[in-house]
Amino acid sequence: MITQRTLQTFLDDLASGAPTPGGGSAAALMGAMGAALVSMVCNVTLGKKGQEDVAPEMQSVRDESERLRAVLTSMVADDIAAFDGLMAAYRLPKADEGEKARRADAIQATLRAATETPLACARACAQVVALSRRAGEKGYSGVVSDAGVGVLAAHSALRSAALNVYINAPSLQDRDYAQAALGEIQKLLDESARESEAVFELVRGRLG
Amino acid sequence: MITQRTLQTFLDDLASGAPTPGGGSAAALMGAMGAALVSMVCNVTLGKKGQEDVAPEMQSVRDESERLRAVLTSMVADDIAAFDGLMAAYRLPKADEGEKARRADAIQATLRAATETPLACARACAQVVALSRRAGEKGYSGVVSDAGVGVLAAHSALRSAALNVYINAPSLQDRDYAQAALGEIQKLLDESARESEAVFELVRGRLG
Repeated sequence: MITQRTLQTFLDDLASGAPTPGGGSAAALMGAMGAALVSMVCNVTLGKKGQEDVAPEMQSVRDESERLRAVLTSMVADDIAAFDGLMAAYRLPKADEGEKARRADAIQATLRAATETPLACARACAQVVALSRRAGEKGYSGVVSDAGVGVLAAHSALRSAALNVYINAPSLQDRDYAQAALGEIQKLLDESARESEAVFELVRGRLG
Repeated sequence: MITQRTLQTFLDDLASGAPTPGGGSAAALMGAMGAALVSMVCNVTLGKKGQEDVAPEMQSVRDESERLRAVLTSMVADDIAAFDGLMAAYRLPKADEGEKARRADAIQATLRAATETPLACARACAQVVALSRRAGEKGYSGVVSDAGVGVLAAHSALRSAALNVYINAPSLQDRDYAQAALGEIQKLLDESARESEAVFELVRGRLG
């Protein structure tokens, strides 16, 4: 499992000329880091005297950020599986019409998975951005900068995932699905661009 | 060494209520991921037939991105050392005037290190952003999206590091140094904001 590799090995593998892990896995890891930093703000706040008023809110945010962290962590591997599936489909034999038809079907099915995987990553990152506002507003001031790093990581992860939707959607023959995916990613990008900047400014303001 | 932890353990530690690793280490790791993705684009391009014209440029970019990757990877631990140093200074005894003076000096020295560490991270990230343009322009089109993810990671890492400069610089008694640090970080932020968006648009354009 890729998440059992060390940071050093993961970085070495990312830098290498092998096709995976690549930008999709990096996006999922950035998203997971964003969720982890939101959880950290909640955990530190829950441990501080004088922060009892916000404890229920911090517990609720942490439950959700920990769920999203698990989802995004698993997506580090999902991206590799989606890429490998697509490559395997392209390598299928195409000696006769029957093989060609089966190969074309397999390519379309794996292209759809390779579009859906980054789209799901982007959706999860958008939820991390929303949680970072609650952590940035209510979290203990001594760790509020971590909510700022978290929102930057989650928003960049969302934009990174969008690049993989842009790569795969144009080759989909199901144009209705492709257009819906492109429309959804644009909406997620626009909302996250606005919200992540607002959270960053909120955090900067709280740094004094 | 923190970079010998697995991705899963690092994320668990980041999410915990312990003060380190925190946003500073996450920033350094994002920067290292950005450098790694620039290296990946170079390595894949160097392995492709038909890309011989850009080989010298890709080798030059890779030499630099690999140097920066090593620097940024080491900064994952540097941020923890800077934080621990600062906490140790605050815990020094202050029973008499002599102790108070020594403690104040130690706090100022460690605050300066805790400002210089994220500033050095931001400088390295700005260089990764510059390299991502060369990788995005000249890299093999099949992996150009990885240059896009790389530039997003590096720019968010730079902004994240800036938050740690903002936290520590105001408490520095050496106002000349503090103002110089704040001025430099603003310049790095402004340049990287422009350049990273330009590289992202360049990459999007090459995705077709």
